[in-house]
Amino acid sequence: MNYKILDTINRSEDVADLKMSQLPELCDEVRQFLIDKVSKTGGHLSANLGTVEAITAMHYYFPTPLNQFIFDVGHQCYTHKIYTGRKNGFDKLRKNEGLSGFPSPNESIHDAFIAGHGSTSISVAVGAAIAKKIKGEPGKVIAMVGDGAFTGGMIYEGLNNVSKDLDNLIVILNDNKMSISKNVGAMSTYLSNLRTNEEYIAAKKNVTSVLDKMPVLGKPIASAITLSKSAVRRSLYKSTFFEDLGFIYHKVNDGNDIYQVCNALKFAKYAEGPVFIHMITVKGKGFTPAEENPGAFHGVGSFNVDKVSDPDVAPSDSFSTVFGRNLSDMANTNTKLCAITAAMKYGTGLQFFYKEHKNRFFDVGMAEEHAVTFASSLAKNNLKPVVCVYSTFMQRAMDSFIHDTALLNLNVMFAIDRAGLVPGDGETHQGIHDLSIFANYDNVPIICPSNYDELKYWQEYLINKVNGPKVIRYQRGGQDNLVKDYKCTGNFYDLIGENKDTIIVCYGRQFVEALKAKEILKNQGIEISILKLNVINPIEKQAIEILKNYRYVYSFEEHVKNGSVSAKIGLELLEAGFSGLYKYKCIDNYTVYHANVPELQKKCKIDADSIVEKIKENYEN
Amino acid sequence: MNYKILDTINRSEDVADLKMSQLPELCDEVRQFLIDKVSKTGGHLSANLGTVEAITAMHYYFPTPLNQFIFDVGHQCYTHKIYTGRKNGFDKLRKNEGLSGFPSPNESIHDAFIAGHGSTSISVAVGAAIAKKIKGEPGKVIAMVGDGAFTGGMIYEGLNNVSKDLDNLIVILNDNKMSISKNVGAMSTYLSNLRTNEEYIAAKKNVTSVLDKMPVLGKPIASAITLSKSAVRRSLYKSTFFEDLGFIYHKVNDGNDIYQVCNALKFAKYAEGPVFIHMITVKGKGFTPAEENPGAFHGVGSFNVDKVSDPDVAPSDSFSTVFGRNLSDMANTNTKLCAITAAMKYGTGLQFFYKEHKNRFFDVGMAEEHAVTFASSLAKNNLKPVVCVYSTFMQRAMDSFIHDTALLNLNVMFAIDRAGLVPGDGETHQGIHDLSIFANYDNVPIICPSNYDELKYWQEYLINKVNGPKVIRYQRGGQDNLVKDYKCTGNFYDLIGENKDTIIVCYGRQFVEALKAKEILKNQGIEISILKLNVINPIEKQAIEILKNYRYVYSFEEHVKNGSVSAKIGLELLEAGFSGLYKYKCIDNYTVYHANVPELQKKCKIDADSIVEKIKENYEN
Repeated sequence: MNYKILDTINRSEDVADLKMSQLPELCDEVRQFLIDKVSKTGGHLSANLGTVEAITAMHYYFPTPLNQFIFDVGHQCYTHKIYTGRKNGFDKLRKNEGLSGFPSPNESIHDAFIAGHGSTSISVAVGAAIAKKIKGEPGKVIAMVGDGAFTGGMIYEGLNNVSKDLDNLIVILNDNKMSISKNVGAMSTYLSNLRTNEEYIAAKKNVTSVLDKMPVLGKPIASAITLSKSAVRRSLYKSTFFEDLGFIYHKVNDGNDIYQVCNALKFAKYAEGPVFIHMITVKGKGFTPAEENPGAFHGVGSFNVDKVSDPDVAPSDSFSTVFGRNLSDMANTNTKLCAITAAMKYGTGLQFFYKEHKNRFFDVGMAEEHAVTFASSLAKNNLKPVVCVYSTFMQRAMDSFIHDTALLNLNVMFAIDRAGLVPGDGETHQGIHDLSIFANYDNVPIICPSNYDELKYWQEYLINKVNGPKVIRYQRGGQDNLVKDYKCTGNFYDLIGENKDTIIVCYGRQFVEALKAKEILKNQGIEISILKLNVINPIEKQAIEILKNYRYVYSFEEHVKNGSVSAKIGLELLEAGFSGLYKYKCIDNYTVYHANVPELQKKCKIDADSIVEKIKENYEN
Repeated sequence: MNYKILDTINRSEDVADLKMSQLPELCDEVRQFLIDKVSKTGGHLSANLGTVEAITAMHYYFPTPLNQFIFDVGHQCYTHKIYTGRKNGFDKLRKNEGLSGFPSPNESIHDAFIAGHGSTSISVAVGAAIAKKIKGEPGKVIAMVGDGAFTGGMIYEGLNNVSKDLDNLIVILNDNKMSISKNVGAMSTYLSNLRTNEEYIAAKKNVTSVLDKMPVLGKPIASAITLSKSAVRRSLYKSTFFEDLGFIYHKVNDGNDIYQVCNALKFAKYAEGPVFIHMITVKGKGFTPAEENPGAFHGVGSFNVDKVSDPDVAPSDSFSTVFGRNLSDMANTNTKLCAITAAMKYGTGLQFFYKEHKNRFFDVGMAEEHAVTFASSLAKNNLKPVVCVYSTFMQRAMDSFIHDTALLNLNVMFAIDRAGLVPGDGETHQGIHDLSIFANYDNVPIICPSNYDELKYWQEYLINKVNGPKVIRYQRGGQDNLVKDYKCTGNFYDLIGENKDTIIVCYGRQFVEALKAKEILKNQGIEISILKLNVINPIEKQAIEILKNYRYVYSFEEHVKNGSVSAKIGLELLEAGFSGLYKYKCIDNYTVYHANVPELQKKCKIDADSIVEKIKENYEN
């Protein structure tokens, strides 16, 4: 496709060189480009359609890398990538060796920092702005934050550390009235009040005079006013929380009107203090199906632009949805069950629970620490909370787990979704660290099913039979065809195969790779056995007793070495007096870039072919 | 000592049974009791003197355990312990087998939840209040939070999840104008503005009329008002952030006046929504030295009530101060060095750096996540930040380390204070989990010195010679006499002793116990060697080569097993074909209660006597 203006844009300065009157057409072209490309590769669509004007104006007034842009979460940065020499990369967006879907300093000097997890941008921007001050460097630092990120506590830690003289800092609140799931909580209500200022003023003219007539000097009256509706006063006088924190506050009512956005950024360019731009945008702007259903177009696979069905945010067939449906069913009879998510209602399959048990369902926003501590308190009060969270985001709440759940041995279940390798999103989203904390506790059972049958059995087992903290963790997506009919034994481990010489230890998705490797080796005349762990913490003593009699023991695992099952098994084999050969492979290139799972497994050398190769080493020597 | 009223108080209801006119005398007696007891045992003094009236009124209107009190951080709960049958425990406060210095549900049913880390209370209280709603149980839940905790992001995550109909929730902001160090940041300024409302109104009467005369209806004027001083308008109209979030806001100007406090709590008892009581108190109230220097009396050892010198908040002779002084010295010539603390300027010995290099010193409040992400951003911009944080609080920032420091391999130094066993504070403050994340990265050097000489050498080595993330971790307090003259070799490990049969692997403080054990065994005719690790991650291959030739290898370590050095060594010995006996002891009773360090070492079986006993097992068999 050819674009009249966009085709001339190859670097940030090219945007700045345009006439302002050309910007609307440029924005239209970028939008067309985004729909064209993302419909073919998949990726984050809605958020990027909403921020075209903002990012265009940012480059117009603040070329990079002299100025630095910090994108919160980061998946709204596509327009920025387009303007900084990476247009051609969009054909391989989020693919192996292709363009990352998130800001990545390893990819371009124009990406000032990494992003992927939410609510970090203010802290990063404050650091960059202060560094510029210390070094006497010119340029501004702009943090672009979605309203969803304001449910995460780090935003407030960052805001709290903005001093009034930090005049090279601009924060853009990209307020599209929803984060990934529908936005929640008191802050959302507050922002919504700010949003409706103008309308409120128009509608409530008469209220003004009433309030203005009230004397505010005497103490009793002041108290009375305190108890009256603050929102009315706030909307009339437009004083905001952000001003109180020291920002110059500026509101843009239509953040998809390039002229309004340019006005705000021009103002910010010359402001004598940190500026907070509150920008109302429409998520999915310019593509009707996405405007109508921005949640569905948050992260999408490829789709047909002309004939759009519902893209798969939460496919009906996945570990998440099987878990979520079953949890909702269990809650029909178990009235103590509660479900907690941190802004991932659909992603974790909790929409069924939400629908059936609203009073026991809690979406707390992008607030994993609160989620875990809140759940711990529910458990302390004799309820049975289940926290459903992605492995990578659980990293946020490890202190909450240690301090609030584990020390009191509280009855909280952790359903760790997206455990292990995660496709597409790249290095910020891998689920390869959670065992490093969960497995610090021998009394916390951790279970890793490899198909739905096992998932349901162990889900029910943990909820019905285990008191105290407990973890079930499973991969993104659905069960593999190779194991879908594998019948859950209910044993803590399963021994497969008759060979007494060589054995692979595995769990979860790696069971599939182990089976494939077994088959390949069998065809080459080599028999091996498999020890499939169902409970991966603590390791059953009997499992070690079995393993120690083998000559060759192998383990291949989707987790970093430290804290891994492989490390534990090695240590226990040593203690048990094992005299054979133990070889393991964990994720040791910690920066696991974006690719699909088979590609990642291959790169990490834990796929069936790598397993075969490793095992054959001993037969060839 | 005898107390007229206090001696009659043995349970929460006894307070409620008093006449209100008796409460002032009760408060006086409690204050006397606290000064008397804490001066003998040591403990947290200032915070407890400031909250006597609040806690007295809480029990007067809301007896426990029907009602639940959630204390943020928790060290301000002594009065609560006094009223709930634990008066006699104060003679063994914070001592082995004695009373915990923090709320502890294992100690009393009146302690509704655990505390120790900051900013968790709102999340806990919301959980308890919602649980009461779900179960239809009566009683209120009261969270008592210091203003310092408002620098931690979790508070906002919690506040964001308070719904307007949660009428069994009361939040008391105990605003004493300082947390442990002097309070910092924009939120502190905001609270201070709220504090001075009354005075402001009195002084600025004339401003009112000016503001009131301004028309607020037209759009341009509204914009103009936006840019005028919001604080003035705010103080006049007293609308607060907390009201905006859905709370009924109530201010108590003197939180040490029992009548004012009672009024507020009585009001809260019958309120039809969540109540936020903003209570101004004086930290150290009633004990002049503590009022004048509340920081110094935050956590104290025993002292002479009549002749007070400066209690040891940051003793001049400690790993913290040696590190802090040296860092300040290094910053004289290294202009890129920055120091970051999360509200522990004195605790981490950064007062020297602060004094000499104010523009490169950052106290970010109780905000560990921000601290690490902010530091990472400084590093991305070519500065050399050093984050000084206690091991237990670093648990808060593990995702920030993984996501913001490690993925970009940024040049951030982590100075992990209070690593290993920590005296007095108990289970919430042990530094026994940090390696479980730090050691996930083979490219992150972790160093653990055992005396000041080593501390300084490796501090300079890491700062001057290592790019990328790096960790130095050290115990609370000072160096042991037994190793103070041990000369730093600058080697990654040191081999001590000639014996080729039995060897102990150790690092940091455990070197002292190993030396003691070696001496005891020598006197019994048994020679052993010691492998002292200086770099504990990654483990030097050569160190394993040495160890594998021994018949007996032992490791005793102040860390949980998972992710420990002991686990790594075992695994690597197995890989290296070690055929001897390997025995290790880590911290496996994860709930390490309060006691002094020698007592804790003994309990955990890693003291010299336990080491000797373990080693002799093999000689007696």
